[in-house]
Amino acid sequence: MAVETLKWIGGIDGYADLIDQTRLPTEYLRIAIRTPREMWHAIKVLQVRGAPAIGIAAGYGIVLASQTIPSEATTTDLINTVDEACNYLATSRPTAVNLFWALDRMKQTAHQHPDKTVSQLKEILLNEALAIHREDSQMCRAIGRNGAHLIPQNGSVLTHCNAGGLATADYGTALAVLYTARELGRTFKVYADETRPLLQGSRLTAWELLQNGIDTTVICDNMAGHLMKQNQIDLVIVGADRIAANGDTANKIGTYSLAVLARAHQIPFYIAAPSSTFDLNIATGDSIDIEERDRNEVINPFGSPIAPSDIGVYNPAFDVTPHQLITAIITEKGLIESPHRDKVLALMKES
Amino acid sequence: MAVETLKWIGGIDGYADLIDQTRLPTEYLRIAIRTPREMWHAIKVLQVRGAPAIGIAAGYGIVLASQTIPSEATTTDLINTVDEACNYLATSRPTAVNLFWALDRMKQTAHQHPDKTVSQLKEILLNEALAIHREDSQMCRAIGRNGAHLIPQNGSVLTHCNAGGLATADYGTALAVLYTARELGRTFKVYADETRPLLQGSRLTAWELLQNGIDTTVICDNMAGHLMKQNQIDLVIVGADRIAANGDTANKIGTYSLAVLARAHQIPFYIAAPSSTFDLNIATGDSIDIEERDRNEVINPFGSPIAPSDIGVYNPAFDVTPHQLITAIITEKGLIESPHRDKVLALMKES
Repeated sequence: MAVETLKWIGGIDGYADLIDQTRLPTEYLRIAIRTPREMWHAIKVLQVRGAPAIGIAAGYGIVLASQTIPSEATTTDLINTVDEACNYLATSRPTAVNLFWALDRMKQTAHQHPDKTVSQLKEILLNEALAIHREDSQMCRAIGRNGAHLIPQNGSVLTHCNAGGLATADYGTALAVLYTARELGRTFKVYADETRPLLQGSRLTAWELLQNGIDTTVICDNMAGHLMKQNQIDLVIVGADRIAANGDTANKIGTYSLAVLARAHQIPFYIAAPSSTFDLNIATGDSIDIEERDRNEVINPFGSPIAPSDIGVYNPAFDVTPHQLITAIITEKGLIESPHRDKVLALMKES
Repeated sequence: MAVETLKWIGGIDGYADLIDQTRLPTEYLRIAIRTPREMWHAIKVLQVRGAPAIGIAAGYGIVLASQTIPSEATTTDLINTVDEACNYLATSRPTAVNLFWALDRMKQTAHQHPDKTVSQLKEILLNEALAIHREDSQMCRAIGRNGAHLIPQNGSVLTHCNAGGLATADYGTALAVLYTARELGRTFKVYADETRPLLQGSRLTAWELLQNGIDTTVICDNMAGHLMKQNQIDLVIVGADRIAANGDTANKIGTYSLAVLARAHQIPFYIAAPSSTFDLNIATGDSIDIEERDRNEVINPFGSPIAPSDIGVYNPAFDVTPHQLITAIITEKGLIESPHRDKVLALMKES
C-alpha cells in the first residue's frame, strides 16, 4: 500500500492532510492544513517535499484560498483571490518547477470559467487539484508497471536518496518499481544508501520501505562498492531530477559514483523518472548547472559540528551520470534501454 | 610542524601529555596522564587512538606504573609491577596489535635487567618507551620522504579517514607524504572525505591539516566521484590497516570504492603504510576478515536517530582493495609500484 504523503479530506470546504516529513523517521505525525498560509509554511519548511508532491500541495493550497470567498461574492473576486494565492504560494520554494506548473494550471482553470458561479468555480478548482493528484498517482503506477519485471526474484536492490512515495502522491518513481514488483509477488531485499548530507535515504526511504514491509538495510554511502564486490547487489535503481535530451541524468549527489561502481561490477543501473523530468532543451548533461548548497549541511548536521568551523567545504547537491552508464530509463511511457538522443526523442514524441 | 599527539614531559618522575581526541574538532584540549589507570581510560575511550599512537601510549603507561615503586624497593618488585601493568593495559583495547607489541617490548626490557637498581631500571624503561616513540616518528618521516615526490605542484589530493599524525607519534602515514611535500615547498590542495560512520576525515584529518596550514576541503564520501569526473583530483592517498602478501589492502570502509573510481578516471591511487602493516601470513585479501561494527554508529550518530530504530543496518568497518587497483604502496623502506607478491616479499626482506 502506498504511503499517503498527502490527501484531501472532504469537499470544497475540506482540508489537506499530510505527513510532517520533518518529524520522520522518529515520529509519524499527520497535520491538517487549512489555510494557504499554512500550506506555504508546510512547503517552505519541507513538511512536504519532492517536486511532484509540492505541485499537488500547491493545488490544494489554491482550493484553501478559494474557501475565503463567500458564495455571495462575485466570481471575479474569486479569480482575483486565486491569482493572489498563486503569487503567494510561488514564493514558498522558488526553484521547484512542479510548484509553478501546478499553480499555473490552477490559475488557468480559474480564468477559463468567469461565467460560473462562485460555488461552481470552487468545485471546478477542487476537481482540478484532485486531477493533478490523480495524474501523479497514475504516472507512479505506470512507472512501476514498466519496471517491475527488472527486479529478480530473491534479488538485492540498491537505491539512493528518496525517489519514493514521500516525494510524490503515490508510489514514487524508483520505489514504484519496487512496490509494483512486490505486488506481483516478487520477494527481494533493498539496500538504502543513507545519502549524505541530508540523509533522505536513511530518514525517508528506509521509513517508507519499512512501512510497506520490504526487507530494507541502511548503509553509509561509502559501503556500496564493498557490497557490489561481494556480489550482494543485483541492480541499482534511482530517481532523477533532470534528464538531458541524450539521456544524461542529473540526480542526487552520489548517483554518479554508484553508476561507475555498477559498471565496474557489471551490475545494471536504472533511472526511474516521469517524462516531465526530461528537458529536451538541454542537449547533454554538461549543460546542467550543479547547485551548491550550504556548508552547514555537511559540517553541522543535526546542529552538532563534525569538522573545524573554518575548514573548506564543497557541497554539490547533484551530479550528472552520463547516458553510457545507464542500462535503461524507466518512464511512465515505457523503457528507454541504453538511452541516447534518438531513443529519448522517439519516446517523448509518443502521446 | 607535526601535531604533538602525545609526548612525555620530564624524566622518570614525569607524565604523559596528550591531545584528547574525543574533543576534536570543536576543542583542542591537552590532558596530563599520571597513572596507569588514567592511561587505560585514555586508550579505552579513544582519547588516544590509531594503532601506532596506542603502542606509544602503552609504553608510557608502563613508565607511569614504575613510578609507584619507591627506590628502596627491590628490582623484583618493579619487574612484578611492570608485568601486572602490562596485563592491565592490555585490556584497554583488546584488538589493537601495536598495543600488545609495545607492552611485550616493555615487559621484555624489564626482564632483561634484573641486576639493575630500581632507579636504573626506571630509567631504562623510560628510554625504551621513548625509543618506541622515536622509532615511530622516524618511520613516519621515512614514509613522507619516500612519497613526497608523488604530490604534484599545485595538485589536488583526495584522502579518506585519518592516516595522519593523530594516529601516530608524528606525521602519520598518508598525511606524512603531504607534510613532507609541503616542507619541500610544494603547494597543493587536499580534499578530505568525511568518512562515515565515525567521521575521522572531517573530525581528525581536517583538523590536523588545518593546524598545519594545508588548504583543505571536507566533502561527503559520495562526492568523490563527481570531483574526479570534473578533473579536480590528481591522486588519491590513504593509509592501511593490514596488507596481504600480494599487496591486497584492507583499509577503512569506502577505500575500495575510491580505488575503483580512481581507476575509472585514470587517477593514481596510493597506499601509505609502514612495513609492520604487511601480514605475509595472509596470501590475498580474500582471507582478511571484515569486522562488522555496531548498528548505532550508522543510525544514531551523535545520539540523534537518523533512521527508523527497527531498520536493518550493515556496518562493515573495512573493505579490501585488490592490488591491481593500487598504483604503489609507500613504505618506510621504499615504494612498491604496481604491487604484487614478488615485489612485496622482496621489499620486506630488505633490512
